[in-house]
Amino acid sequence: MTAIKGFSFAAVPAGFKKADRLDLGLIVSERPASAAGVFTTNLFKAAPVIVAMEAVASGTAQAIVINSGQANACTGAEGLENCRTTLRLLSEATGIPASAILPASTGVIGQQLKMDLWRTTVPALAKNLGNSTLDDFARAIMTTDSFPKTATATVNLAGGQVTLAGVAKGAGMICPTMATMLSVLLCDADVPTDTWQQMFRTAVAESFNRVTVDGDTSTNDTVFGLANGASGVKVLPEELPLLQQAVTALMSDLAYMLVQDGEGATKVLRINVQGATDTLDAEKAARTVGHSQLVKTAFYGKDANWGRIVAALGRSGAKFNPDGVSVTISGVTIFKDGAPTDIDADALLKEPLEQIDINVDIKLGSGSGTYTLLASDLTHEYVSINADYRT
Amino acid sequence: MTAIKGFSFAAVPAGFKKADRLDLGLIVSERPASAAGVFTTNLFKAAPVIVAMEAVASGTAQAIVINSGQANACTGAEGLENCRTTLRLLSEATGIPASAILPASTGVIGQQLKMDLWRTTVPALAKNLGNSTLDDFARAIMTTDSFPKTATATVNLAGGQVTLAGVAKGAGMICPTMATMLSVLLCDADVPTDTWQQMFRTAVAESFNRVTVDGDTSTNDTVFGLANGASGVKVLPEELPLLQQAVTALMSDLAYMLVQDGEGATKVLRINVQGATDTLDAEKAARTVGHSQLVKTAFYGKDANWGRIVAALGRSGAKFNPDGVSVTISGVTIFKDGAPTDIDADALLKEPLEQIDINVDIKLGSGSGTYTLLASDLTHEYVSINADYRT
Repeated sequence: MTAIKGFSFAAVPAGFKKADRLDLGLIVSERPASAAGVFTTNLFKAAPVIVAMEAVASGTAQAIVINSGQANACTGAEGLENCRTTLRLLSEATGIPASAILPASTGVIGQQLKMDLWRTTVPALAKNLGNSTLDDFARAIMTTDSFPKTATATVNLAGGQVTLAGVAKGAGMICPTMATMLSVLLCDADVPTDTWQQMFRTAVAESFNRVTVDGDTSTNDTVFGLANGASGVKVLPEELPLLQQAVTALMSDLAYMLVQDGEGATKVLRINVQGATDTLDAEKAARTVGHSQLVKTAFYGKDANWGRIVAALGRSGAKFNPDGVSVTISGVTIFKDGAPTDIDADALLKEPLEQIDINVDIKLGSGSGTYTLLASDLTHEYVSINADYRT
Repeated sequence: MTAIKGFSFAAVPAGFKKADRLDLGLIVSERPASAAGVFTTNLFKAAPVIVAMEAVASGTAQAIVINSGQANACTGAEGLENCRTTLRLLSEATGIPASAILPASTGVIGQQLKMDLWRTTVPALAKNLGNSTLDDFARAIMTTDSFPKTATATVNLAGGQVTLAGVAKGAGMICPTMATMLSVLLCDADVPTDTWQQMFRTAVAESFNRVTVDGDTSTNDTVFGLANGASGVKVLPEELPLLQQAVTALMSDLAYMLVQDGEGATKVLRINVQGATDTLDAEKAARTVGHSQLVKTAFYGKDANWGRIVAALGRSGAKFNPDGVSVTISGVTIFKDGAPTDIDADALLKEPLEQIDINVDIKLGSGSGTYTLLASDLTHEYVSINADYRT
């Protein structure tokens, strides 16, 4: 892994849900960093979301702490107080002001944090700082994830090389508008807070907000971004597009991993809608197809059941002329100008449908609006995981 | 079964999908009946939907023909012509004008009707008239349904007793706004067309449009209603509410059966939202909970995972104060005024969650809007059925 400058990591097992499993992670920047955050749009915001929103508003932060096991969501005044207490404990152990620490939690909704375990584990966490890797941190924040999700990139700027490092978790309750569960993006370039926040939001909109597993928006969704300038490289105004491109690409890689690791998922559907009257209609069409249980089960069954795609488009609320619609699956056009094409789709699609990555290209023929959504399939394993999550 | 007057039934195996399975059904009224119809809102309307919409517009009809196997949806001009041809064949065999026959189809989208089988089978269908029952008809229109869905009722009016008989099919692609797949409601009362159509629409809005299995609106959804007056009983103006009540109750019974027989379903969730700012917000809240894959899998797993219900409410788009929200499952209040209650919910709900019928009562505490939705759960069997539908 490329070393990102000025950030150190800690990850320890606190026993929040299972013994001897990494479940508490900490990232510390050697100096206050430009901070950005994007949070769930759910009306029920978890305690750490409320606290982190306040902290990010100041524009800088120096540390991020994330636990798995308990989401600390819908936990009332006690949950909020517990969250603030964990930050005080961390502040005592690290010397970083509590107001400069960004908290996030993931796990079961409605469970209070296990404060006794926090009290006994925070000193060990602080002591571990620098002895863990980004990958360890990624493991500590996993819940139903089957693999840790990290990505790094370097960008060569006039002042030298800067590094980006990202981490994400999330396999379920993944959905529109803040689709991420939890993610952290680190950058050692020197970027002013305003610029960083704008760059960050643009990247989130193009990446995490365009994936879906199950259409459920979590109460805890959070993406943090810290840029600490530790590389000593100042980003020149003309270099912003270059850095933006790298930030967006890195987040898109992490977003892809979320879908790839969607609960029980066996497929990543890249649903690309073109020719909608506008972007909103294109998004409606893409999301309705990507959320359709019937479409998702068909792809799981390796079945080119285009009728389900077309039926989903027809109920999506997007306006179009049915006679102008075409659907192409992994390069094979099976529906054109509102009618099935005269090909042996089952034969032609047999091999493409065996692949993990499947392209669903939809043309509505009604304008220039486009939208791309990544979606997982719906499988027996998804049902098993979610019918049995708490046991 | 109570005998409904002036209607006769036919059901035969045509071999549209499987051999020796009833798949073509016919209902004939001895006289032209007041006709009503409610159809899918999907932009892709199946050929029989387009033809039936025209026929119902005249206000009267004398027969209904429904096939399973092929949906005749997204089949272009050929599909439309085929549908009209089937009505001509039936007209020749029965003497009823083609314009007085209402068609509906269900099965795989995109497949053309098997016209050779229609040609050879329609004479047998006409010959069978009167030798089949409502139950046989219900069997002929089944696809993934596991049981035939019929319901009958009698209403005593001043002029004598009238009878209602209803039939429905549908286990998948069942969803908001015209949630029914196919259903027929017969009535032997003498009701003017306008009155009948209004009564019919009211009943559909209160019943079929308040159920969901998978959130997918079919291209073929159709409910037909025929009132033929064969009982000789004229409905008096002051008796309309009584008949309305019976019609709505009968349709609600059929709607319940659709959810009960939802693909792979093991539960019927009655999601009742109260205290929304208005009816629309109540509906948004109920539908978001009823469509949530996470809520549906939790109930399948007999897990009182209220966090998923609350998270669904929070992203539903309904406006409310989170601190005013309460959730009661089958009489046990597990979330009150925005926080979990201090009870052993798992113990108290162990027995209720074993039941098929589960009440989910949600109070938003923000107004007087209410809405009730019936929803199924999401199971392994649902995935099996839909990953493998065409094979």
